Amino acid sequence: MSEENKNLEHKRHTLAHLLAAAVLVEYPHAKLTLGPAIDHGFYYDIDFSAGETPGDEDLKKIQKHMKKMLSAWTSFDHKEVSADEARGVFAGNDFKLELINEIENKGETITLYTAGAGTKAEFTDLCRGGHSENPAEEISADAFKLDKIAGAYWRGDEKNPMLTRIYGLAFDTKDELDAYLTQLEEAKKRDHRKLGKELGLFSFSELVGPGLPLWSPKGTTFRREIDRFVTELRQEKGYELVTIPHIAKKALYEASGHWQKYSEDLFKVRAKEGDDHDEYVLKPMNCPHHTQIFDAEPRSYKELPQRYAETTMVYRAEQSGELSGLTRVLSITQDDAHVFCRETQLREEIEAIWDIVDSFYGKFGFELKVRLSFHDPEKKEKYLGESSTWEETEGMMKTIAQARGADYFIGIGEAAFYAPKLDFMASDSIGRTHQVATIQLDRLLPERFDLTCINESGEKERIIMIHAAIAGSLERFAAVLIEHLAGNFPLRFAPVQLAIIPVADVHNKYATDVYTTLKAAGYRVEIDTSNDSMGKKIRSAKKNKLPYFIVIGDQEVENNTLTLESRDNESNETITLENLLHKFAEENN
Amino acid sequence: MSEENKNLEHKRHTLAHLLAAAVLVEYPHAKLTLGPAIDHGFYYDIDFSAGETPGDEDLKKIQKHMKKMLSAWTSFDHKEVSADEARGVFAGNDFKLELINEIENKGETITLYTAGAGTKAEFTDLCRGGHSENPAEEISADAFKLDKIAGAYWRGDEKNPMLTRIYGLAFDTKDELDAYLTQLEEAKKRDHRKLGKELGLFSFSELVGPGLPLWSPKGTTFRREIDRFVTELRQEKGYELVTIPHIAKKALYEASGHWQKYSEDLFKVRAKEGDDHDEYVLKPMNCPHHTQIFDAEPRSYKELPQRYAETTMVYRAEQSGELSGLTRVLSITQDDAHVFCRETQLREEIEAIWDIVDSFYGKFGFELKVRLSFHDPEKKEKYLGESSTWEETEGMMKTIAQARGADYFIGIGEAAFYAPKLDFMASDSIGRTHQVATIQLDRLLPERFDLTCINESGEKERIIMIHAAIAGSLERFAAVLIEHLAGNFPLRFAPVQLAIIPVADVHNKYATDVYTTLKAAGYRVEIDTSNDSMGKKIRSAKKNKLPYFIVIGDQEVENNTLTLESRDNESNETITLENLLHKFAEENN
Repeated sequence: MSEENKNLEHKRHTLAHLLAAAVLVEYPHAKLTLGPAIDHGFYYDIDFSAGETPGDEDLKKIQKHMKKMLSAWTSFDHKEVSADEARGVFAGNDFKLELINEIENKGETITLYTAGAGTKAEFTDLCRGGHSENPAEEISADAFKLDKIAGAYWRGDEKNPMLTRIYGLAFDTKDELDAYLTQLEEAKKRDHRKLGKELGLFSFSELVGPGLPLWSPKGTTFRREIDRFVTELRQEKGYELVTIPHIAKKALYEASGHWQKYSEDLFKVRAKEGDDHDEYVLKPMNCPHHTQIFDAEPRSYKELPQRYAETTMVYRAEQSGELSGLTRVLSITQDDAHVFCRETQLREEIEAIWDIVDSFYGKFGFELKVRLSFHDPEKKEKYLGESSTWEETEGMMKTIAQARGADYFIGIGEAAFYAPKLDFMASDSIGRTHQVATIQLDRLLPERFDLTCINESGEKERIIMIHAAIAGSLERFAAVLIEHLAGNFPLRFAPVQLAIIPVADVHNKYATDVYTTLKAAGYRVEIDTSNDSMGKKIRSAKKNKLPYFIVIGDQEVENNTLTLESRDNESNETITLENLLHKFAEENN
Repeated sequence: MSEENKNLEHKRHTLAHLLAAAVLVEYPHAKLTLGPAIDHGFYYDIDFSAGETPGDEDLKKIQKHMKKMLSAWTSFDHKEVSADEARGVFAGNDFKLELINEIENKGETITLYTAGAGTKAEFTDLCRGGHSENPAEEISADAFKLDKIAGAYWRGDEKNPMLTRIYGLAFDTKDELDAYLTQLEEAKKRDHRKLGKELGLFSFSELVGPGLPLWSPKGTTFRREIDRFVTELRQEKGYELVTIPHIAKKALYEASGHWQKYSEDLFKVRAKEGDDHDEYVLKPMNCPHHTQIFDAEPRSYKELPQRYAETTMVYRAEQSGELSGLTRVLSITQDDAHVFCRETQLREEIEAIWDIVDSFYGKFGFELKVRLSFHDPEKKEKYLGESSTWEETEGMMKTIAQARGADYFIGIGEAAFYAPKLDFMASDSIGRTHQVATIQLDRLLPERFDLTCINESGEKERIIMIHAAIAGSLERFAAVLIEHLAGNFPLRFAPVQLAIIPVADVHNKYATDVYTTLKAAGYRVEIDTSNDSMGKKIRSAKKNKLPYFIVIGDQEVENNTLTLESRDNESNETITLENLLHKFAEENN
C-alpha cells in the first residue's frame, strides 16, 4: 500500500472511533463492538439497547457530534494494559470482553487508544492502532459523511446476535467526497436491478427462489447477442463448441481436487428419499467435464490445440443473504473455454485469447488494465513445479504485454499455486473498476487427469490447459454492461432495435410494409399502431431505450422515405428504406 | 386389440409355456416363475440351480425341445383348483407359492393350464389363460426363435433375487420372423452407440457417470443444427426464446403439483453437509419455471399468445441399470416450448405447432402418424373440467386433423387427466416406429399458478397453456436420427460437410484457396494434406460419412475446376467453385 493510501486508511479508521464516540453521546447505553476502515470510508458495529436503535433520520445528529468532537481530537495516544485492566474498562460489554479474552489467549499485547485526552470529547477504545496522529488537523470535517444504517451479525456469523452497523464515507477532500457521491447517485440511476425491471429483461420469482434469475424474451435476446459475439470472436481463433451435462459423479471432483477443497460450496444432488450419500454434484465449473472430452480418445500432437468453448450454467452454493440482483446469483452462466495445448503453443494461444478480450471489451467502450499475476519467488514452497518454468512463462507473459502496449502491472504472489494468470480490469463509464476476464494457465489439472498427447517421437507428452472465459459470468457481465451503458445498448445488443410509429391509421399500410421488410432482414422491430398519442408513443420508445425509431406521416408516405430518430440525439434524418438497411447492416455487428 | 393381434399374442403366450416345458427337460431342477407374451415374442423368467444356468450356446438345444414338443401340443386345457391344491402342485417353488398366496388373498380363482395332456410333452402351469387352442396346428414351428438370455429381478425389484430371463421371438409366419431378424440386423449396424463412437459425436466418462453424455465438437455441431432448425421454424410462428436456471425451490413443484406426484423421481439438491432438508430440486421439466416468466407481470389480452421456447437440460432420476446410449439418459436436453394463450386462440396455435412438427420430421424423411389422445367419456370422474369443454376441444382437434389430411387415429382414454393431446409417431427407414412430438393442452397449470390475462372487458380471464416440444429430447432424437439415416446426415446437419483432398503437394496451394473460400462462406470443411494415399484419404472421408469430398489434381488446377464426389453415389461431377457455392447454398437449409 502506498503512503498516501495508508494515510487515508488511518483517517477512515480514526473516523470509525469518532463515530463510536459520537454515538455514545446520544446513546450512552450502546455497546461498542468493532469498527474498521473500509473502501470509501468506515463503519462501526454497535449493540443498541432495545428500543434505542437509531434510524437513518438520526445520522445527521450523530454526524453533528462527530464534527464538534473532531476539533478536540488533536492527539491519539495509546497504552498497553493487562487483560484484567482491559476487562475493567469494558466491564458489562460482552463483545469487548470476548475480544480481550481472545487477545489474551493468543498471548498478544492489549492496547487502548485514546483520542482527545483531557477534553470533554475524550474517547478510549480497544484497538490495534493505525490512526491519524492529529485528527483535528489532518481530517477535513467536510470530507466525510455518515451514509447509512444496516444490520450485521456479530463477527459475521448468523448464529450470533444482530448488531447495528453505521456506515460512513470519507475521503481526503470534500471534492473527492462529492465526486464519489455523484458517482453513487449516477450508479443508483443505472442500477441494473432497476433498469432490468424497467426494460423487462429479467425477473425473480419467490417460488423459484432468490439468486435464480428468469430471463424474459427481451433479456434472452440481450444475453444471446453477447454470447454470440463471444462465439464469433472465438470462431475466428479456431474454437469449437462442446456440450456437457450439469451434474457429475462426486468421483470427477475427487479426481480434480475440487471436492477436497470446496465441497462445502458445492450443491450435492441425490435421487432417492433417504439416500444419504451424495452421488452427484451440480457442477461448480466446467473444466473437469471438458478434460473428459479431451481424454475421450488418444490425441496426436497434430490435433492440438483442442479449443473447447461452451456457454453453460454452473452452480455455487451461496448464503441466500448474499444474493443480489445479477451480481450474486446461484446459477452462473459462464461463456467458458478451455484450451488443451502443448507448452510450445502457449504463447500463440494466450495472444489469441487476449485479442478476443480486447475486441470484446473494446466493443462496449471499456478501458482495460491487466494484472500479470505472478508467483512470489520468495515463497517457492507455495507453488507447484520448477522455478525455471514459472520464470520462463512469466517472462513470456510480460513480453506479450509489452509487445501489445497493454496497460499492465505485475502482481507478485497473485498467481494460482499451479500457474500464473492474467487478470483484466475494466473501467466503466462512471469511473468504477470491475474485475472481468482472466486467462488462467493450468499445469495441475493435466497432471491430475493425466492428459497427454502423442508427440513427434511417438511418446506421451504432458499438455497444458488454459481457462479462458471472456465475459466470465453472463449475469455479472450483463449487470456491469447495463450500468456502464445505462441501458443504452448498441444496436446489435438491443432487444428491440427500432420502433415504427405511424402518425395516423392512414399511414399503417406503409408502416407495415416497412416493418415487414425490416423483419425479413432479421431486425428486431416493433410497430406501434395503438391509439396512443404520437408523443406518448415516442416517449415509450425512448423510455425503452430503443436505439432508433421512425415516425411515418403524410410526408414520408408521399416521398417514400422514413424519418429516423436516434435515442442518442434529438436530431432526425430523412432516409430511404434501402439506406436504412445499409446503415443497420453496417452498425449491427 | 384386433382379433389378429389377439391371436398372435395367444401364440406368443403359448410359446412362453412351451419354452418353460422345454427348459424342464434339460434342467429338471429349474424353478419356473413368470412368462408373458411381449412385443415381437415372449420370455420366461427362471431360477436355475447354482452352476446350471444356461448360456446363449444352450438356446439351440432348448429350442429343439420346443419344436419337438410343439407337435404334441394339440390342446390347451384348464381347471380351477383350490389354493391348497395349487400349493401341492408347486411345492418347493417359492415363486409360484408367492403368486398363489396373492391370488388367494385377492379372493380370485386359481387356474392351472395344461398343454399336451396325456403325452410325454404334457406340461402344466399356473396361469390366467390366453393361449392358442391347438398350438400344434396354429403355431408355425419356423416362425419362432429363441433370441437371447438376460438377467432380471424377480418381479422387477432389485431387492429380490436375480433370475434368468430367456427371450424368444415369434410371429405368424417365417417370412415375418425373417423380416424382423433382418430389421434387427440392420438396426445393429446402425446402432447409434456404435455410429456415435465411429463418427466421434459423443462419449461417456466413468468419472462423470453413466447416462451423462459428453458431446464433442462434431456432436455439438450436429445437435446445434437440429436445434437451430427447430428455432427457425418456431421463429416464423412468433416464438421467442427465454432462459431459466436448472434448479428451483421445492415450493415451485409443490405449487405445480409435481412434488406430490413425482418426488421420488426428482433429483434433490442441497448445499451444506448435514443439511437434511431438500431446499432445491433439479428441474425435471420447464413448464413451472416458464409460468413464472409469464406471471412476472400482469398480461393484457393484447400481449397474448406469449410463446416461450428454450432448449435446456432437464434431469430425471433413473436407475443406473436403465441407462443406455442416448435413449435413456439422466440429462435430457429438451427443445421445449410453452404457449400461453386464450381459449379462442387455441386452434390457430395448435395448427402452427403442427406445421412445425410436419416441417421438422418431413425434413428427415420420417412418415408421421398422429394419435388424437382423447378422454374416456365413460369415465368422466377421471378428468378435470366440464364434459362440454372436452368435447369441444376434441372436436376441434379432429377437425384440424381432417383438414390437414393427417394420418390419424383416436385413442380413447389416452388424454392426460387435465386435457387432450396429440401424439405423433414417426416411422423410420427400417420400419420401426418411434413416439416423437406431443402437443399437450393444459388447463391444470394455469389453475394451479392462477395464470390470467386482462380481457377486453378489463376482467381477469383464465388462460390455457400448450406444451410443444418438437424434437422432444435432443438425445433421444439424435439416437433415432442417427439410426434412421445410418449416420448419413443431410448437408446442413453433417458435422463436417466436405473434405478437400489434394492428390500431391503441388496441389496444396489451390486446395487451400478452395478451403479458405468455403470456410469464409461458413461451411464446415476439412483439408487432408497428410501423407496418406489418395485411396486412404477417400476411404476416410467415406467412413466419416461426409456428404461430399473433392479431389484436386493436375487437371483441376489447370482448368480451375473441382471434381466433386458425393457420399450417396459413386459418380462424380466437375464443377466450378462458384457453382459449388450455389449448390451448397441451395442444399444447406
